[in-house]
Amino acid sequence: MQLLPSYLSGSWSPGSGTRQTLVNPTTEAPLAEVSTSGHDFAAAFSHARAVGTRELGALTFAQRGALLGALAKAIHGAREELIALAVANGGNTRGDAKFDIDGGAVTLSHYADLGARLGSAPLLPDGEPIQVGRTARMAGQHVWAPRHGVAIHINAFNFPGWGLCEKLGPALLAGMPVITKPATATALVAHRLVELFAPLLPPGALQLLVGPAGTLLDHVGPGDVVAFTGGSATARTLRAHERLVAHAVRLNIEADSLNAAVLGPDIELASETGALFLADVVRDMTQKTGQKCTAIRRVLVPEARQAEIEGALRERLAGIVIGDPAREEVRMGPLATAQQLRDVREGIARLAAETTSIFGGTGEVTPVGVPAGKGFFVGPIVRATPTPLACAALNDHEVFGPVVTVGPYDGDATLAAQFVARGEGCLVSSAYSDDRDWVARFVRTAGAWAGRLYLGSSKMASQSPGPGTVLPSLTHGGPGRAGGGEELGGERGLHTYMQRVALEGDASVLKSLLA
Amino acid sequence: MQLLPSYLSGSWSPGSGTRQTLVNPTTEAPLAEVSTSGHDFAAAFSHARAVGTRELGALTFAQRGALLGALAKAIHGAREELIALAVANGGNTRGDAKFDIDGGAVTLSHYADLGARLGSAPLLPDGEPIQVGRTARMAGQHVWAPRHGVAIHINAFNFPGWGLCEKLGPALLAGMPVITKPATATALVAHRLVELFAPLLPPGALQLLVGPAGTLLDHVGPGDVVAFTGGSATARTLRAHERLVAHAVRLNIEADSLNAAVLGPDIELASETGALFLADVVRDMTQKTGQKCTAIRRVLVPEARQAEIEGALRERLAGIVIGDPAREEVRMGPLATAQQLRDVREGIARLAAETTSIFGGTGEVTPVGVPAGKGFFVGPIVRATPTPLACAALNDHEVFGPVVTVGPYDGDATLAAQFVARGEGCLVSSAYSDDRDWVARFVRTAGAWAGRLYLGSSKMASQSPGPGTVLPSLTHGGPGRAGGGEELGGERGLHTYMQRVALEGDASVLKSLLA
Repeated sequence: MQLLPSYLSGSWSPGSGTRQTLVNPTTEAPLAEVSTSGHDFAAAFSHARAVGTRELGALTFAQRGALLGALAKAIHGAREELIALAVANGGNTRGDAKFDIDGGAVTLSHYADLGARLGSAPLLPDGEPIQVGRTARMAGQHVWAPRHGVAIHINAFNFPGWGLCEKLGPALLAGMPVITKPATATALVAHRLVELFAPLLPPGALQLLVGPAGTLLDHVGPGDVVAFTGGSATARTLRAHERLVAHAVRLNIEADSLNAAVLGPDIELASETGALFLADVVRDMTQKTGQKCTAIRRVLVPEARQAEIEGALRERLAGIVIGDPAREEVRMGPLATAQQLRDVREGIARLAAETTSIFGGTGEVTPVGVPAGKGFFVGPIVRATPTPLACAALNDHEVFGPVVTVGPYDGDATLAAQFVARGEGCLVSSAYSDDRDWVARFVRTAGAWAGRLYLGSSKMASQSPGPGTVLPSLTHGGPGRAGGGEELGGERGLHTYMQRVALEGDASVLKSLLA
Repeated sequence: MQLLPSYLSGSWSPGSGTRQTLVNPTTEAPLAEVSTSGHDFAAAFSHARAVGTRELGALTFAQRGALLGALAKAIHGAREELIALAVANGGNTRGDAKFDIDGGAVTLSHYADLGARLGSAPLLPDGEPIQVGRTARMAGQHVWAPRHGVAIHINAFNFPGWGLCEKLGPALLAGMPVITKPATATALVAHRLVELFAPLLPPGALQLLVGPAGTLLDHVGPGDVVAFTGGSATARTLRAHERLVAHAVRLNIEADSLNAAVLGPDIELASETGALFLADVVRDMTQKTGQKCTAIRRVLVPEARQAEIEGALRERLAGIVIGDPAREEVRMGPLATAQQLRDVREGIARLAAETTSIFGGTGEVTPVGVPAGKGFFVGPIVRATPTPLACAALNDHEVFGPVVTVGPYDGDATLAAQFVARGEGCLVSSAYSDDRDWVARFVRTAGAWAGRLYLGSSKMASQSPGPGTVLPSLTHGGPGRAGGGEELGGERGLHTYMQRVALEGDASVLKSLLA
């Protein structure tokens, strides 16, 4: 069986020690192995610091952008192969796989374009010059300066392609060398991407660790950045990591998120906005088998419409074919790992104790085209609660699968926002309304509790990607439970990998520094 | 003796338990006592959440700015009284006291003016609208939204006035209620400020804890913000605090900082820029007895000029009268506490083992007008090292007193920047040069390692406040050892107390939300 090597210190290294097997989550057939130890992390960090920093630092934003453009092109060139890996190793349908892989290419292209725009700027201005003395002579100018350190990227299992690219693009464009670590279980796509990318990048710019992180983080130091996407338990460990704490290492976290979708009281289900709402809920449940950190988990609807909405969801979900994602008719594949299946079943049981079933029971399904008893399958599930703000199982625990819970409210915008807040911080929440005053009231309170607010309305319904799609031009991250981090958002995404500095001095000197 | 009460849940409360005594650091005479326990923190948090959030949330930026203006006016009205408290409790000279107290008023006024400018905006825009769909209809707009939570401010002993105000201004303007905790030893100024401020603010907007923090932070939750200024040991404890970690509570830290000052190779000491350099070093050593987190600790000079500079420092420092800061002729008072004196002496001993004495030996002095054997005095000290980048005692440990170490270099701008970097992250560093190319090279590498870079030159010499002065319009904070935090910087200072949200939806809806 293939042993997936890591790419460290400029060469492919198989590692050593016990091995971990990657499987096809549809059939549970083994696909590849990874080593669980035997890598020289100290050497990898030295390589990044000595070679990667120098090589990337010698390039302009435009030149680094051009590299990102080449990476995006490399994805396009290997698209079918990458899709096949995502189907096999991730349990993705072809649509799911494209979402991950094309999403990665789009994000790299976005940062390639940004690089071209930033050109050869030595520093990025942050705001306008400020007079700080008695005369205009004595001035201040905030700038973003390149950081000198290594970016360590620890990614989640659900987006091995996009996750790698969305962290890589901003870091490389900012000039920081990257050590990327995909989740072991679905590492095949990330491994192939680094095979494609490494020859296109300067030495030291990108390293890959497949397998457990082990002592990787014991090598971080001042100036480094750790960016993590994953569960809240790991997030907690990272926050309190001795080495990160001792050196105040910059840490960006995207963790659990109980994203809410709220239907405004003005919206008929048969309207354009109502249809958008319904399509978004169903898409978020089924796309990637609900394994999106941005997927809708909690649904709040006007009490009078609840039965109608539950009926519509039942109807839509009944039509979803579940099974081997390699088959064309299949709309939803398995969960990615056995552990995910255990976690999701546990979450469903917790929900079941406090809610009633609207669709899908507790998720038992007979998947199409799958050997009996094989695969990590769970069916789409809709639950309901009469008391959505009080339901602890709904609001305190993320079920990372095709599961939503619906609850009623009286239509009050502030109450809807409090429902968003009840998740204690999320990546995205959405509201569907064509009543601007209602939306304004909602945003004013909900804004504190989300990294993104998706405002569904009739005017943009036809071209909307839905709340579950992360766009490179908008920030991705959220407060509290969602980790408190921020990625992407166009140029904002570079800031994690740069240092804001207030320059203070003679106005004409400051001006010359930006030229 | 006066028992300083805390101001919690809308009333003054003496607390209970054992007491701690505040002394005059010049005479060691007791001034007041504080309780070390007996406060109902749960009630204080509830009061802030229930009353403070509502009261502040009902006001516009302009109205909250007007409140800050009233606070600044209250400081002016009680200026002499506050200065007297700072002299007695802080060991401040009159000049030191004005720096702290007037600095607080200036900062509040700055945020009062900002509030007036922001007017009644419901949300603050962050950048321009972005097209995110196929047509201009589907848009994105980043905004800063008010957060719903409590700001907990934990301040350092050295700036009881300014420290309280520089955190309070941005938090209140952003709409967050504050619980402020000054360092116990020098709490008299902060206590008096809250006596002045409380009647001018809405209920719940400001609470004060004098005495140890105890279990205060066990009550923080999602949405809250903790802003801390102090030493790195406490900073580490805060970072790993179970409650903060569990809820990903936003934490802003300003900790140790080994600020550097570099003289460019083009500067004659007799020139305007040379004089500015010398004046800034001497000011930072003696102002507040060197107890400024922004004070210059490390000085790098061209090898050929080292002897001349050491001579000039000797001459200036010999003229500094040290003693009872209440006396007019005294230019430098004692350190603030017995513990500070112990720490500074320990730091000097560490330095002494690796450096040679240029001025002041190990700091023994006979202060003017002070009873024999009393007071926490140490004299200004200049040490020298031939190997400034290799000297661990110089670069790894902050001595929080009137102590600098001078070392030589060959004039190379990148080497100078590496010297800045050797401090592993600082609040501010400074370079003095009239050679723009040299400055540009310096900034490009040093920028990663400082929150502010002060660029001294002939053109702004006459009106410069020096690197040690924090201005409300420029960010204050620094990477790595300095804690990784950021405060002030005009509107940027509000962002710690707000949430950035990417709004996504119909372009005209987004536009209406900002109106």
